Amino acid sequence: MFETKYGYFTEDGKEYVITTPKTPKPWINVISNGDYGMVISQSGSGYSWRTHASLNRITRWEQDLIKDEWGKYIYIKNETSGDFWSPSWKPTCKEPQEYEVRHGQGYSIFETKYFDIKTNLTMFVSKDDPVEIWKLTIKNTSEKEHKLSIYTYLEWNLGAAPDWHREFHKTFIETDFLNDLNCITAEKRMWEIPNEKGQNWNRNWEYTAFHSVNEKIAGFEGSKEKFLGEYGSISNPNALISGKMSNTYGKWEDSIGSLKNEIILKPGEEKTLIYLLGAVSKKNTNGSVSSLVKKYQTVEKVDEEFEKVKDMWNEMLSKFTVETPDKALDFMLNNWLKYQAISGRLWGRSAYYQTGGAYGFRDQLQDSQIFLYVDPEQTKNQIKLHAAHQFKDGSVYHWWHPISELGYKNNISDNRLWLPFVVLRFLKETSDLEFLKENIKFLDGGESSLYDHCIRAIHYNLNHMSPRGLPLIGDGDWNDGMNAVGTQGKGESIWLGHFLYGILKDFSVVCKKMGDLANMQRFMDEAEKLKENINKYAWDGEWYVRAFKDNGEPIGSKQNSEGKIFLNAQTWAIINGTATQTRSETAYRSAKKYLFKDYGPLLFQPAFAKPDPEIGYLSRYAAGVRENGGLYTHAGTWAILAASKMKDPDTYKIYKSFMPIYRGLEPDKYLAEPYVTPGNVDGPDSPYFGRGGWTWYTGSAAWYFIVAIEGIIGLKAEWEGLKIEPLFPEEWKEVKVKRIFRGKQLNITYKKSDEKKIIVNGVEIDGNIINPELLEENVLNVEVLF
Amino acid sequence: MFETKYGYFTEDGKEYVITTPKTPKPWINVISNGDYGMVISQSGSGYSWRTHASLNRITRWEQDLIKDEWGKYIYIKNETSGDFWSPSWKPTCKEPQEYEVRHGQGYSIFETKYFDIKTNLTMFVSKDDPVEIWKLTIKNTSEKEHKLSIYTYLEWNLGAAPDWHREFHKTFIETDFLNDLNCITAEKRMWEIPNEKGQNWNRNWEYTAFHSVNEKIAGFEGSKEKFLGEYGSISNPNALISGKMSNTYGKWEDSIGSLKNEIILKPGEEKTLIYLLGAVSKKNTNGSVSSLVKKYQTVEKVDEEFEKVKDMWNEMLSKFTVETPDKALDFMLNNWLKYQAISGRLWGRSAYYQTGGAYGFRDQLQDSQIFLYVDPEQTKNQIKLHAAHQFKDGSVYHWWHPISELGYKNNISDNRLWLPFVVLRFLKETSDLEFLKENIKFLDGGESSLYDHCIRAIHYNLNHMSPRGLPLIGDGDWNDGMNAVGTQGKGESIWLGHFLYGILKDFSVVCKKMGDLANMQRFMDEAEKLKENINKYAWDGEWYVRAFKDNGEPIGSKQNSEGKIFLNAQTWAIINGTATQTRSETAYRSAKKYLFKDYGPLLFQPAFAKPDPEIGYLSRYAAGVRENGGLYTHAGTWAILAASKMKDPDTYKIYKSFMPIYRGLEPDKYLAEPYVTPGNVDGPDSPYFGRGGWTWYTGSAAWYFIVAIEGIIGLKAEWEGLKIEPLFPEEWKEVKVKRIFRGKQLNITYKKSDEKKIIVNGVEIDGNIINPELLEENVLNVEVLF
Repeated sequence: MFETKYGYFTEDGKEYVITTPKTPKPWINVISNGDYGMVISQSGSGYSWRTHASLNRITRWEQDLIKDEWGKYIYIKNETSGDFWSPSWKPTCKEPQEYEVRHGQGYSIFETKYFDIKTNLTMFVSKDDPVEIWKLTIKNTSEKEHKLSIYTYLEWNLGAAPDWHREFHKTFIETDFLNDLNCITAEKRMWEIPNEKGQNWNRNWEYTAFHSVNEKIAGFEGSKEKFLGEYGSISNPNALISGKMSNTYGKWEDSIGSLKNEIILKPGEEKTLIYLLGAVSKKNTNGSVSSLVKKYQTVEKVDEEFEKVKDMWNEMLSKFTVETPDKALDFMLNNWLKYQAISGRLWGRSAYYQTGGAYGFRDQLQDSQIFLYVDPEQTKNQIKLHAAHQFKDGSVYHWWHPISELGYKNNISDNRLWLPFVVLRFLKETSDLEFLKENIKFLDGGESSLYDHCIRAIHYNLNHMSPRGLPLIGDGDWNDGMNAVGTQGKGESIWLGHFLYGILKDFSVVCKKMGDLANMQRFMDEAEKLKENINKYAWDGEWYVRAFKDNGEPIGSKQNSEGKIFLNAQTWAIINGTATQTRSETAYRSAKKYLFKDYGPLLFQPAFAKPDPEIGYLSRYAAGVRENGGLYTHAGTWAILAASKMKDPDTYKIYKSFMPIYRGLEPDKYLAEPYVTPGNVDGPDSPYFGRGGWTWYTGSAAWYFIVAIEGIIGLKAEWEGLKIEPLFPEEWKEVKVKRIFRGKQLNITYKKSDEKKIIVNGVEIDGNIINPELLEENVLNVEVLF
Repeated sequence: MFETKYGYFTEDGKEYVITTPKTPKPWINVISNGDYGMVISQSGSGYSWRTHASLNRITRWEQDLIKDEWGKYIYIKNETSGDFWSPSWKPTCKEPQEYEVRHGQGYSIFETKYFDIKTNLTMFVSKDDPVEIWKLTIKNTSEKEHKLSIYTYLEWNLGAAPDWHREFHKTFIETDFLNDLNCITAEKRMWEIPNEKGQNWNRNWEYTAFHSVNEKIAGFEGSKEKFLGEYGSISNPNALISGKMSNTYGKWEDSIGSLKNEIILKPGEEKTLIYLLGAVSKKNTNGSVSSLVKKYQTVEKVDEEFEKVKDMWNEMLSKFTVETPDKALDFMLNNWLKYQAISGRLWGRSAYYQTGGAYGFRDQLQDSQIFLYVDPEQTKNQIKLHAAHQFKDGSVYHWWHPISELGYKNNISDNRLWLPFVVLRFLKETSDLEFLKENIKFLDGGESSLYDHCIRAIHYNLNHMSPRGLPLIGDGDWNDGMNAVGTQGKGESIWLGHFLYGILKDFSVVCKKMGDLANMQRFMDEAEKLKENINKYAWDGEWYVRAFKDNGEPIGSKQNSEGKIFLNAQTWAIINGTATQTRSETAYRSAKKYLFKDYGPLLFQPAFAKPDPEIGYLSRYAAGVRENGGLYTHAGTWAILAASKMKDPDTYKIYKSFMPIYRGLEPDKYLAEPYVTPGNVDGPDSPYFGRGGWTWYTGSAAWYFIVAIEGIIGLKAEWEGLKIEPLFPEEWKEVKVKRIFRGKQLNITYKKSDEKKIIVNGVEIDGNIINPELLEENVLNVEVLF
């Protein structure tokens, strides 16, 4: 199914497989990431790191193991013929006889055949240990005996990145070789993180990195120059040509890690090598190099660990599954979107195009909603982490780096509101009101209840309204690129108005539950005023204006020749009910007409052809690219909630219009990987209309899941329970969902029927809300006739 | 002379020539800088920029034209045979039939022969126009007619660097093609410099870059992907293989500039193509793209401009020439050191290993001393520029970027003192006391005379002394890497004591001349106290201690097991006379014994094997590398002044021990270019003892010139005039110097003789100081019998 020239997904929807005899697409070369890379991150015992990266240098401060201009590679050389190649195609890029790559949750497998030698390279990160494992099985399928040499290659980075000033940084790196372990270790005597006295460049990197192999080596190399040779290249390194490894280590090199093994394979014979790449903390003992290397010496142990990893993901991801007539949707919902959000966004916080490593205040908060469906406790932890990055006045860090706790504060106006937003969603999912009483610290001292943290966030925004009662946009809102709209302290955001309105309304209910009637009343009053003002000032005739500049001019109005209509200003008016029913219909019609295009709902139209210095860098991008009139997928997902609320029968069609797996059917146009969401897709003002970009690290991963569940499958947590209100395409007859809600297992079956009713464990219920807390059974079999 | 396997310098000492049939050394590939690059900068009309760079990303903010992972390249393809190559060897790296590179002042010439096609590629930057010119002459030396295609390649950067986040930045770049001019233009809609309102990412790059050729093109390419091909490489790009140029331009690409021309050459025939790479300001009209392209259409015009450039350098550099028995010394003094200091340090402010682009307060001030010998007015301008980057309290920026004026302030304690230091040297050279009265602004408002700027700088340091009257080191002194010695506000610097002592003594004379008797007296008193305290607390028995930590422990003492003895603490005691004669002798003997090694005077010994967090990042480098016990050339030069003052007959031998041209005789050990000074050379604690690094951008360029003139040739400007006190090696019989001093031409001939005397225009003078201001003649023929 969905087999294309390049790829398909397996029947169980867990793996995406690429087989091609021709040049692979960029995104399938996960290990050898010349231009691209991939995040494999695991977070068992509380740490996580990225082991793959990209040419777009890594900016994560703390523990980047390897330098990523090059990636990490394996070379195999046939010593008889002199041929050499890479089992992942890159960097040698030779034509394979066979080529298949399978990406699953937590692993990638490369199966190739070159010169009659078959290899299977399985890569994954251990569930609990700080180590990445490469299991390389090599089989001689020829009629002759072959002597093979196998080389690995990676460049040590060890700490802050982008470490573009290699001439400076390389002289702080020190490698060693542990003979009995066949293991290269690497440490760094300088870490970019200030020390406890606040001094820069005066602290050791607090880890020992290592790279080992389970068989006796034939040599190793710690010097980049010696491995590549003078003017040598990664595709044709001198070590492969000469066969010489100098066994160099120490502190005077541009440090790499390379191990050489030699094996002889009889016809039909196969052997397996186990490579490790890891790092142990010097402070918090999470295993010694020696203990980790010794632990993973055998295929059995590695296979056992591999099963643990797969089991971990299976267990987590299977807590919420769907079965729909569209296998592509199942593929996305059951595995990949959750995996992308958790692995890429929450744990790795990094990807090809954007390699932050920091926590974005609003970013990982939103992402953590994915855990509501599989493990709400982890949403709770994320909420606590973010609440602790708030100041007493309600303002927050825009982002901060863990470990160093270096943070950045700005005047972007929506950041802080995502705290009550996600808290609200957590509360509706779990009904765990006690959480609100938990005390959490402020960045600038003192502590207070989570409830109070939320109140302060909301108050901050209520105290920053314009004279006519619209929210000040500050240095941008959800859209960072509108960074000049309100610099003088006057510009207003209508999207922020819709967003704030929803929070005021919703949170007033929380206030009531908490007995805080003053805030309850204030929020209700402010909400009404806000709604009135939005409709008084921001209705443009056929849609809502997006914002007003410092000078009062509108953005996203029929008055404008570019940026006439913005998506978020319409979708959130509908989602949060700021609009009347009539205006909702008009606004939705306009959005659909002007913005919902072939490859998804555009952020606005038309794109800016020239920069508008009163708007900001949004208008400086190429027309149609990223926020400048492209599909910005994060915002695109919200259009599904609006479409659903408007009961648009095209809702699923719109959803499908930007589903990666469908877009992957045109790989040469789409370019991006088909199993994860991209950050953006070029809009019609770009000559590359339909080209995806910035995959993996995008807030759309969690939201593209959520809007399918709420907007199409129609399962939405409300205070009263789980509301069921599906909006399937006409041709769907049956859908099944398994999920947990408030501690109970729900097995839901939707069936198309003439009568509409909901039956729970054989009993028809009134309305369309199930509150498991009112029911005795732990397993609820729900039949939904629609 | 000095011909080696790799290179030699021409008889006139203006060019360094490399001829080799084998793989070139890294440093000769100036144009195609894969791993290395070179600065060619010109500053005729007041601007300058770098047109070459290196893998070590450029950090200069303002006007980096091209992205420098790759460099800029030319490819030539023989359409009949399909062979293609590069006239600069890189990036195709094919074996040439002939290969010669000549680096002169302001230009480089690559002469190669591949497949019987000879090329001469001459590259230089125009004297007055913002344009780099590549003149490529191609000659068919075969017996057959050949059709050749010629391609150029460069990646646009346009502004802030390191622009490592290409996925973000590329979407702001916009290219166009001007058909009638055969010219690609490139602009950028986003500049990292904040706009006038202080907003980031909201300003256009204020230049138009361009790349043109003087012959009708056969096609052009603006897309990196299309040029290289999917997975293509710079050494084997798809465009060369397929011959296809897509003529793509616009704003949706990873923008490059590539021009393709086709020529047919009969046997013996040659043709010349003229390429331009330039940028014009949109604000200050320094020529339009069109006018510049049209100006350089013919070989005659280009040759005329090339002559202008050579003339400009010849004229400037020939203002001060020497003729000694050592042609290597002449080569360095007459051309390359001045060129390095002016072009690399003062104008380009960038090089392979360190690509700042900023002005360092003390850095370019010291460098500007080079102009005292060829054009003191430019020293004056540099002094004014730096004085204007002082705050009212006497403190200064550590560095700042021109154009943006973004600066960085820290608590490094010697920065500010270099202002009076260089002012003193300017005054002694020129006797222009009027300059002191010139009003110059402070960074934080207000203005004052240059004299007062100097006074404030000195007062700042006098107000930051320790309880026992030694200078506080703050967050480091001359040695940035001692950044933890005085963090708690207690650590003391003995080197700074010597340095300050000299300034106090010398500047008290200025005070007297200015009638400021209060400061005169204060400085004299403070100097005596300081000298007393240094000798009381910092004499270690056989040498001076370098510094005291916050906790009072010494650095650079016999008590220490590492960093026992530091160079600067001895040399400056001698240079400035803080030491008594006896202690000078003892300290010098110790320095010579422990520090003066095979490849120059080490910064200290032994190197730190492990980091000392109470010293700072100096101790974190690999042992023997850079400041950690290597030759740090900047400091190494001062050892010559000390040796000379001690009348050490080995002075010239010590000087020669780190002269690049001699070190280049062992290219495989030294590795660095032999015609410019390196920043450092590995010390004996490194396994690469003798390996040079960080060439071009080093404060040693100007100083290595100065110390030769003052310490060996023995010409030193004093208040009373030019003091003549040579210290030649035993075997030297005759030396000639031509220089200008206080407006008069001095032709000095030194002759070894039994009698010692100095004869000026035929008249023997008393003593050894010539004051041209007391003489009538404009040309002084000076005979020095020594």
